[in-house]
Amino acid sequence: MIKVSVMYPNKPDARFDHDYYRDKHMPMVKSRMGDACLSYSVDKGLGGGAPGAPAPYVATCDIYCESVESFQAAFGPHMKEIMADVPNYTDLQPVMQISEVVVDRQ
Amino acid sequence: MIKVSVMYPNKPDARFDHDYYRDKHMPMVKSRMGDACLSYSVDKGLGGGAPGAPAPYVATCDIYCESVESFQAAFGPHMKEIMADVPNYTDLQPVMQISEVVVDRQ
Repeated sequence: MIKVSVMYPNKPDARFDHDYYRDKHMPMVKSRMGDACLSYSVDKGLGGGAPGAPAPYVATCDIYCESVESFQAAFGPHMKEIMADVPNYTDLQPVMQISEVVVDRQ
Repeated sequence: MIKVSVMYPNKPDARFDHDYYRDKHMPMVKSRMGDACLSYSVDKGLGGGAPGAPAPYVATCDIYCESVESFQAAFGPHMKEIMADVPNYTDLQPVMQISEVVVDRQ
């Protein structure tokens, strides 16, 4: 299994509508991807490693799929619509990472 | 529920022993934290967002706890031992983030 992480780097005065992201954007992504999205998670940054340090990312999501190929096949056709929704919740440019899930919630 | 993410930034020639991390380090962390660690995940970076782009992080882990306080109470007393094990699998300096789990594998 792989996961695709989308991470929104934190910065002062960042605009990020966590409610919209949770209630509108991510359910739309799941809906468009169908069963290829096995599951997804959404996180809200609280802090960094040192006391009082800001979170490196204001928000992240993880999309779990069987393979990179199944992600691309399900996400690609809807990418334009999904990307067009981004300004509705943020003006941040996300960082993306594709990972192999080595240990899954053990 | 919160999660503590430990992310090892990728760089050329980074040393990272994924087997040691999965088989020795993270089970040790779980063992020391006991039930305060509800579960944990380990991921291996495969790539970035653009085709052929390197993964931002060579490896990451997520440690799930009920609260920041329960994490600190369980991790703090063992931090010295846990940190002393890091050179056994990498010379990278990790980035840490504490997040609120907003949507959990829906």
